Amino acid sequence: MPAPHERRRAQLGHELVGRELDAALVTDLVNVRYLTGFTGSNAALLVTVEGGATLATDGRYGDQAAQQCGDLERLISRTLPSVLLDTLTSRATLRCGVETHVLTVDEHAAIAEQAREHPGWVLSSLDRAVEGLREVKDAAEVAALRQACAISTSALAGLLAAPLAGRTERAIARDLERRMYELDAEAIAFDSIVASGPHSAIPHHDPTQRAVVAGDLLKIDFGARYEGYHADCTRTVVIGSAADWQREIYAAVAQAQQAGVDALGVDVPVADVDAAARDALDRSGYLEHFTTGLGHGVGLQIHEAPFVAKRHPGRIRSHTALTIEPGVYLPGRGGVRIEDTLLVTDEGAAVLTTTTKDLLVLD
Amino acid sequence: MPAPHERRRAQLGHELVGRELDAALVTDLVNVRYLTGFTGSNAALLVTVEGGATLATDGRYGDQAAQQCGDLERLISRTLPSVLLDTLTSRATLRCGVETHVLTVDEHAAIAEQAREHPGWVLSSLDRAVEGLREVKDAAEVAALRQACAISTSALAGLLAAPLAGRTERAIARDLERRMYELDAEAIAFDSIVASGPHSAIPHHDPTQRAVVAGDLLKIDFGARYEGYHADCTRTVVIGSAADWQREIYAAVAQAQQAGVDALGVDVPVADVDAAARDALDRSGYLEHFTTGLGHGVGLQIHEAPFVAKRHPGRIRSHTALTIEPGVYLPGRGGVRIEDTLLVTDEGAAVLTTTTKDLLVLD
Repeated sequence: MPAPHERRRAQLGHELVGRELDAALVTDLVNVRYLTGFTGSNAALLVTVEGGATLATDGRYGDQAAQQCGDLERLISRTLPSVLLDTLTSRATLRCGVETHVLTVDEHAAIAEQAREHPGWVLSSLDRAVEGLREVKDAAEVAALRQACAISTSALAGLLAAPLAGRTERAIARDLERRMYELDAEAIAFDSIVASGPHSAIPHHDPTQRAVVAGDLLKIDFGARYEGYHADCTRTVVIGSAADWQREIYAAVAQAQQAGVDALGVDVPVADVDAAARDALDRSGYLEHFTTGLGHGVGLQIHEAPFVAKRHPGRIRSHTALTIEPGVYLPGRGGVRIEDTLLVTDEGAAVLTTTTKDLLVLD
Repeated sequence: MPAPHERRRAQLGHELVGRELDAALVTDLVNVRYLTGFTGSNAALLVTVEGGATLATDGRYGDQAAQQCGDLERLISRTLPSVLLDTLTSRATLRCGVETHVLTVDEHAAIAEQAREHPGWVLSSLDRAVEGLREVKDAAEVAALRQACAISTSALAGLLAAPLAGRTERAIARDLERRMYELDAEAIAFDSIVASGPHSAIPHHDPTQRAVVAGDLLKIDFGARYEGYHADCTRTVVIGSAADWQREIYAAVAQAQQAGVDALGVDVPVADVDAAARDALDRSGYLEHFTTGLGHGVGLQIHEAPFVAKRHPGRIRSHTALTIEPGVYLPGRGGVRIEDTLLVTDEGAAVLTTTTKDLLVLD
C-alpha cells in the first residue's frame, strides 16, 4: 500500500478523537478510495480510533481488494456495511460516526436497527470529516492533479492548432477527448461542454450537431482524469473575427477571473474570493449575467469542497485545489467562461491549467 | 411535451391512490427525467394525486426546464426539494411519499423538520414506486433501447472486421467507442470493459496497455447510450486459434446464456430465470466459476430493476428490458461472458443485441 493512505487514515483517527467518536463507518466510495486506494464500485470501510481499518466489499472485488489494500483487514460480503458493524459486537459501548450526507434513509435505517441490539451503541453523524481532510491535497494528489491538468492543456493546444470552423460541436468534443486519451488520460473528467454561437450562452450545454461558423464564440469546458484526479478547464475563443461586444464580455470575464485568482491565498475567507470576482463583474456592468457559482474544489471528484460562494463560512487552507470560473452569459447571443484549476499554497495560487487566457481569434 | 411523460405521471397518480398517499416528492434525477423529460443535473418533482405536477430546479436550468417541460409548473430555487413542499402549505393534512432509498439522512432530516411545522402532515416512503413503473417500457423507451442496441452491435461489427492482435485493450476500447459516436451514440453507456488473456478472468476490468496476442480470449463488455437509454452487450472472442479449454468454457457459457434466455417470459418468476442459467452451468461443471449476478434491468439506467437473482420475489412483467449475462472466470487463465439486452413481451424474449453468439476466432 502506498504510504499516503495510511497517513490519511491516521488523520481521520485524529478527527475521531476530536469528535469524541470511537469509529467511523465510511460508505462514500470516493472517501473509501481516498483512505484505502480501493477503486471498486462497492465497498465500505470501518476505521477505529485505535487505528484499525477493515474494508468490506463483495465477491467481484476480492482479488482487487487484495491487490490494492493488501495491508488492510478485508471482508467479502453481500451485506455492506452491516458486516463491518458486526466486527464490533464485543464492544459494550460504541460511538460510531456514519456518513449521514451519503447514507440513504433506508440504508441508515438498516444500520440503526442493527445498532439498537446493543444498548451501549450510539450512531452519530461523521459530519463530512473525510471531505474535510480531502480539501488539503498531499504530494501524491498534487502530482496526479498536475498530470491531469497537463494532459488537458496539451490536448487543447492540439485541438486549437487545427481549423475549427465547419466542424460540429460534437466532432470537436470527440476530437478533444481522443487527444486526452492519446496523452494517457485514464478517462474524461466529465461530459465535455463544447458550445458555439448562441449555445455558448448556456452555462451547461451538451454538444450538438451545430457546426461552428465565423463570428461564433466557442466555449470549451473539459478535463482529463488521471489516477482518479480530475482537471477542470474552460477556454472561450472566437472564430473568424471578434465583434466589439465579444471583446467586451471577454475582457470583463478575464478581469473577474484574474481578480478571483489574485484574491486566493492561505487563510483567506472563501467568501472574499467570491466577492473579488463578483465586484469586478459589478464594475464592468455584467454581474447580472453571471448566474453560476464561482468555483469549487477539485480532486477525486470533479466537484468537491470547498465550494466558492458568498455564504461559505470557512477559509482557504494550504494545498487546496480549486477552480475559479466566472462567466458572462447573454441569452440568445453568446457567452464567455474562463476557468482554471489552481493549487493554493503558502507561495500563492499556482495555475495548473496553463493555457493562455488571452482572447484567441481562430479559424 | 411528448405524451409519454404525462401518461407516466398519471400512472404514478394511480400508484399513489393504491398507497393511500396524497403526493409524491420525487428526488431521484432519473425518476424525474422519466416523469418529465427534464435532463438537468439538479431537480425535484412534486406529483399530487389530483394530477398536479411541479418541477423545481436551479437558475442554471431555467431555460432548459421551460424547453423540456413547458407544460409543467416550474419553480426556480436553490432549496430543492423544500420549495416544492412549500407549495402545499395550505393543506391541513398531507400524506407525502418521499424516496427514502435516494434521499440522504441529512436531506430527509431537512424535509422532516419542514413537515413538522404542519401537524397534519406525514412523510412516508414512496417505496420505489417510480422504479416499479420503469420496469415496464413504453413504446418511446423501446424505440430508444432498440436504437442504442443497434448502434452498439453495428460498432462491434466494425471493430471485429479489422485485426485485433497487437492492439492494446485501451486502443480497442477507444476504437469501439469512436465507432459508437460515429453511429450517433449520445454517450458511452458505461466504462467499456476490454479484457484480454488472463485479464478476461476478471469480471470487471479497466482496459490497460496490454496488447492482445494470439491465444487470448478477448472479452468486450460495452454499450451505447441513445436518448438516455442504455445498451449492454458482452461478446468474447478468441484470437488466432482456440484451445480446447477455451472452446469448452465458451460452450458452457453459451448454453447457460441460452437457457436463461429460453426461460424468459411474461409472468415467469425472476428466480426461475436465474435458476435456469445456473442449472446449465452446474451440469457443465462450471457453476463455481460464475461469481456475478445473472442479469439486470436496463433503461434510463444501465443497472435497474429487475435484478435477476435467486431471491427475487417477483415475476417478469410484459415489456421488461433486461440483460442475461452468465460467465465463467478461471483466475489467471481467462474467462468468457456472453450478454444480451432483451425485451420480454407476450411474444417472448426478443434479443436486441443481435451480434452472433457463435465462437468467433479472429486475427
